[in-house]
Amino acid sequence: MFAFSAMSNAQQAKPIYLDDSKPIEQRVEDALSKMTLDEKIAMIHAQSKFSSPGVPRLGIPEFWTTDGPHGVRPEVKWDEWDQAGWTNDSIIAYPALTALSATWNRNMSKIYGVSLGEEARYRRKDILLGPGVNIYRTPLNGRNFEYMGEDPFLTSQMVVPYIKGLQSNGVAACVKHYALNNQETYRHTSNVIIDDRTLYEIYLPPFKAAVQEGDSWSIMGAYDLYKGQYATHNQYLINDILKKEWGYKGVVISDWGATADTKQAIFNGLDLEFGTWTDGLAAGTKNAYDNYYLANPYKEMILSGKVGTAELDDKVRRLLRLAFHTTLNKNRPLGSVASAEHIEAARKIGEEGIVLLQNQNGTLPINLNKTKKIAVIGENAVKMMTVGGGSSSLKVKYETLPLDGIKKRFGKDAEIVFARGYVGDPGGEYNGVITGQNLKDNRSEKELIDEAVKVAKSADFVVFVGGLNKSEFQDSEGADRKSLSLPYNQDVLISSLAKANKNLAVVLVTGNAVSMPWVKEVPSILQTWYLGSEAGNALASILAGDANPSGKLPFSFPVKLEDNAAHAMGEYPGNKEEMAAGKGTDKNNVINIKYNEGIFVGYRWHDTKNIKPLFSFGHGLSYTTFEFGKVKADKTKISRNDKITFTVSVKNTGNREGAEVVQLYISDLKSSLPRPTKELKGFEKVYLKPGETKEVSITVDQSALSFFDPEKHDWVAEPGEFEALIGNSSSDIKSKIRFSLQ
Amino acid sequence: MFAFSAMSNAQQAKPIYLDDSKPIEQRVEDALSKMTLDEKIAMIHAQSKFSSPGVPRLGIPEFWTTDGPHGVRPEVKWDEWDQAGWTNDSIIAYPALTALSATWNRNMSKIYGVSLGEEARYRRKDILLGPGVNIYRTPLNGRNFEYMGEDPFLTSQMVVPYIKGLQSNGVAACVKHYALNNQETYRHTSNVIIDDRTLYEIYLPPFKAAVQEGDSWSIMGAYDLYKGQYATHNQYLINDILKKEWGYKGVVISDWGATADTKQAIFNGLDLEFGTWTDGLAAGTKNAYDNYYLANPYKEMILSGKVGTAELDDKVRRLLRLAFHTTLNKNRPLGSVASAEHIEAARKIGEEGIVLLQNQNGTLPINLNKTKKIAVIGENAVKMMTVGGGSSSLKVKYETLPLDGIKKRFGKDAEIVFARGYVGDPGGEYNGVITGQNLKDNRSEKELIDEAVKVAKSADFVVFVGGLNKSEFQDSEGADRKSLSLPYNQDVLISSLAKANKNLAVVLVTGNAVSMPWVKEVPSILQTWYLGSEAGNALASILAGDANPSGKLPFSFPVKLEDNAAHAMGEYPGNKEEMAAGKGTDKNNVINIKYNEGIFVGYRWHDTKNIKPLFSFGHGLSYTTFEFGKVKADKTKISRNDKITFTVSVKNTGNREGAEVVQLYISDLKSSLPRPTKELKGFEKVYLKPGETKEVSITVDQSALSFFDPEKHDWVAEPGEFEALIGNSSSDIKSKIRFSLQ
Repeated sequence: MFAFSAMSNAQQAKPIYLDDSKPIEQRVEDALSKMTLDEKIAMIHAQSKFSSPGVPRLGIPEFWTTDGPHGVRPEVKWDEWDQAGWTNDSIIAYPALTALSATWNRNMSKIYGVSLGEEARYRRKDILLGPGVNIYRTPLNGRNFEYMGEDPFLTSQMVVPYIKGLQSNGVAACVKHYALNNQETYRHTSNVIIDDRTLYEIYLPPFKAAVQEGDSWSIMGAYDLYKGQYATHNQYLINDILKKEWGYKGVVISDWGATADTKQAIFNGLDLEFGTWTDGLAAGTKNAYDNYYLANPYKEMILSGKVGTAELDDKVRRLLRLAFHTTLNKNRPLGSVASAEHIEAARKIGEEGIVLLQNQNGTLPINLNKTKKIAVIGENAVKMMTVGGGSSSLKVKYETLPLDGIKKRFGKDAEIVFARGYVGDPGGEYNGVITGQNLKDNRSEKELIDEAVKVAKSADFVVFVGGLNKSEFQDSEGADRKSLSLPYNQDVLISSLAKANKNLAVVLVTGNAVSMPWVKEVPSILQTWYLGSEAGNALASILAGDANPSGKLPFSFPVKLEDNAAHAMGEYPGNKEEMAAGKGTDKNNVINIKYNEGIFVGYRWHDTKNIKPLFSFGHGLSYTTFEFGKVKADKTKISRNDKITFTVSVKNTGNREGAEVVQLYISDLKSSLPRPTKELKGFEKVYLKPGETKEVSITVDQSALSFFDPEKHDWVAEPGEFEALIGNSSSDIKSKIRFSLQ
Repeated sequence: MFAFSAMSNAQQAKPIYLDDSKPIEQRVEDALSKMTLDEKIAMIHAQSKFSSPGVPRLGIPEFWTTDGPHGVRPEVKWDEWDQAGWTNDSIIAYPALTALSATWNRNMSKIYGVSLGEEARYRRKDILLGPGVNIYRTPLNGRNFEYMGEDPFLTSQMVVPYIKGLQSNGVAACVKHYALNNQETYRHTSNVIIDDRTLYEIYLPPFKAAVQEGDSWSIMGAYDLYKGQYATHNQYLINDILKKEWGYKGVVISDWGATADTKQAIFNGLDLEFGTWTDGLAAGTKNAYDNYYLANPYKEMILSGKVGTAELDDKVRRLLRLAFHTTLNKNRPLGSVASAEHIEAARKIGEEGIVLLQNQNGTLPINLNKTKKIAVIGENAVKMMTVGGGSSSLKVKYETLPLDGIKKRFGKDAEIVFARGYVGDPGGEYNGVITGQNLKDNRSEKELIDEAVKVAKSADFVVFVGGLNKSEFQDSEGADRKSLSLPYNQDVLISSLAKANKNLAVVLVTGNAVSMPWVKEVPSILQTWYLGSEAGNALASILAGDANPSGKLPFSFPVKLEDNAAHAMGEYPGNKEEMAAGKGTDKNNVINIKYNEGIFVGYRWHDTKNIKPLFSFGHGLSYTTFEFGKVKADKTKISRNDKITFTVSVKNTGNREGAEVVQLYISDLKSSLPRPTKELKGFEKVYLKPGETKEVSITVDQSALSFFDPEKHDWVAEPGEFEALIGNSSSDIKSKIRFSLQ
């Protein structure tokens, strides 16, 4: 009676599941064997907006998830979307993923992941809801800014180091949105119709790379439907492809509110349900989370014998595996926020991501010898872009606005004057509440333009900072853009500025392509994306030539919307007849979207159809010049399982150091199935001092030659002739070489 | 330009402060050297109700503190006292510290600390605001239930294992409230006047043991004043005694709202300011914490050169040291909540803490052979006691109420009937809102007693469960009790029950002594304290004899209030003349309290003044009987630096296994200063099977013989004759032996 035999956990012999020296699968089975049904059910659904329970009794911690891919979201209330009013949750905003992709620099991606992961870890987050790798199908997709462009190879190459860097902190990536969520319109109510070849060649590769090469410990199901089932619990996408074909052992997490059916959630591979129903509990309600599809409804089906527990155990095993990588991993570092390294990473990625689209007569960089007054024009020079846009909205420690960055860099040498030029978002309504910015302005478009022109005329150099923003129907989650054009009368404004001052740089702050009717009127154009906390500094650095632009477009800029494949051939935003019939209004009234354009997405379309884009995929200028040698190959014929290496010399022929991206495209000269003219299969970014020459080698194997054969349901490389094309954009091929597969 | 030299933290060579292999003091200096003034200032004051900043840039985590000593408090909002509405914060409530102290079992204290620390750790807390070791000076102190009784030796012995157990989880203890906060009335506005000898002999020893033997990594300053300075930034208590005399290297944390002056906070040893001002920020206010005494006001004094930075660096060093023990200690376990071990610990500590005060004719345990109907009477049988009482209020996973525990244990053998008997707290006002208990009852006292008597008469055995509760003016923080009597007419009720049924057990749920005018009318009395989640089960176990009572009173029960020293001789609640003059109303109008009774606190008073208590310090019966042999000593004379060992045999002479506490008191037969008749200097709890005999040895050194000489400002053991008294309560000395110090 008095011999108190039971000791506390700390004093007992360590159970297997807490023993670091044991293999993870053994620890998983041990923990699983100790859990009750209630504990298992609890573990597979949320307990709050962003957290899910561990097993308190066994000392298995909770999971805390967080948006988002570009910075760690501020804290929200337990069960409400409102911010919680904490003051310890401001962070560094990193460049949005389009900017990262535009660096074409895998090392930048690694540094991005490490830095963001350190901030997530310091903020005690275990799962970061990103990165996003949905393919850029249409420039109207409001969420393109969160993704990595139109090319599956580039996206795959860039996502893997991000995930590895992030997860080196013991913070799980949750690659999203799996799959086929390529627009925001009808995102909850659309069923995507797509052929298998397109699915496998264009839309799935980044996810496959993320889970197989990146080892992403979790993946997020998308909102849309495929084959009539919600992607988040989808037999084909999750069970057949992800878990069976790809052998995925990680956790499938629903997007917030994407779960729709208990049985499908049980059987079609969803492992962790988040975001269903509930936003602020009604008075007297104890816990609405008990009503989740994978909560009491599942438990009752088990207790009544309607379903077994094999699927439950599989889900819990996956969650336990995740716990051993994250919450139970005692070796994970502790993280930090806004370290000097983070700030440098944010600025450097921004500098490398900025794309110099056009630069006539060496307009840029700004020559301070002959520039004593700089006019900065445009709302985006003074507008915070880290707030808004949906779930990626942030609370930053600071955001250097373009005007501030320019003042800081040029202010000691030149007078800086500003005119707003246009009014895009009055502030105060959405952003203003959070940012404290008051951007109300009641002047007419004419008054604004007149003032801008006057200011522009008074200056030696004009920097126009415009583009889109993070408001609804711009670059923002939940809705698509309404047209390819710049909004808010900017086209007229830019033309007016071009007339007023020939020393003009147009700086486009967007995450999407826009049309540029004024493209021939302006000498220089910079595509700068959303660059986060260091936006203004990175821009100023490029404008001044402190950094030399080296970004390359991760997607094509069409001249007009109809030049984009989805708009020319496919269905967008849905089947026209069904739209006319009012489909897509709710979950019971789903609308179809048929991807008629098939594999011909982006430059694959422009190339194959000979539709010249405004700016090509892979395009980006430098302040220096490069000369490519002739590409050589280490063999002329390869057999299966062989590799082939292409080598080209690149010389910096200008007088600044700079970087060029050597791009390798493969062209299948004869194929049993139609193929795009060329496809990106390799790239290397090379840094060169003035006069310096480097040899760049890129090696590929037969996977670079393959297409997906829907009949065989497999990748096929057909014997025959291929061409390797080396260039510095998809439309600027410097040399090519033939080889054959035997 | 392109060589991106700076790598993320994870990739860089580890700085010294993050290198576990380096000595802590070296890591402290390294981190300190990297911190900015702003980071140092931020670190020494709160950022929210319960958290303080780390150094995000350097990856030094925040500190998250939590009440309380008996269980981990539920989450509150960022800057408001309201609960945050989280659903992951319910825990096990452990017995209140009086109950722990009453076990007289150091191992229970260790298990308590380990268990509570595991729960705090799982809840991601770094500093637990407890244990409380203020000495029991008056039975009216509303917060006595949180402390460990009237004896400095017992408290010291019990607090050390608690702290060690807690801190084994990498969760810091914060021993409180340092010092002289021995009542709640005037706690913010009273200045304690006390002689040095009393300070050192009675009120300081538990704190000294906590920091020197327990290595408590933090300590909380009290609200009251001493020598005209607030205890929380007090030259004498903190600088001179704690940090200089005792060499304390840990962190002094203000009690919430205890800080009152920037200069004193800077110079008088406060290291971390919490709880000043602010409860919910006014609209538009960004961060009221910047106005804390140790925030901007301190920074401005530094920047203007009014004060230097040596004190700041000292505070930050202490906080960094704490971080290396807690947040930066990668070896700390991950904790758990409500594990089987925790539940067993809560029940076992409860069982061992229950004190059988009186048991005539073997009334207890309940003999089920002749008991077919048990009447449970009294509100405390159905009242949650884990909610209320101030900062120690909890959100429990469950609380087994006495009636539930009795039903569970006895319900299969006997009919259980219940009558409320009295109405103490209607519920619904404070507790009811949180607990969901609706205890409203509008019947008159007479109606309630009549019903109770009727129910009692119908039964074979009556268990009355009464006492105090956690409402204001009972056992609750912030106010003292108004009298020694049981409230709510319970004395009349108990007498009525005693007349109605001779098989009566009176169960007192209190954290304080109460008067018992009916003591001779009732056969058995159990003092059960507040036992937390397992309260009902622990009580039922004792009532049934599954566990044999072995608790001993940690404080004396006086017959009447005037028999207590503070009320007989000292000033309570303050100086009478000053009270009459309206002193003590606010911080500018402080009232004095003179501890005239000096060292004669508790049994020291009763013994020395020959005032027989109702129940003595150290008293507690068993269901079995014990026989003590004659005490022996291993020598008759000792010199300085010698030790002496006393040995006594104890035999279980009854027919149940049970435990007895062998108590060693020392009596100084001749002294230059007046000394109490005897003082506790050793104890051992011994577990014995029926018929079993064990030898119990207790060794002391000259510290057990010493008193504090205010002239020498040191502890003095005067040569001469001493007596060692062995007993099982302070009033039941079984044998004694003389020895001398040379």
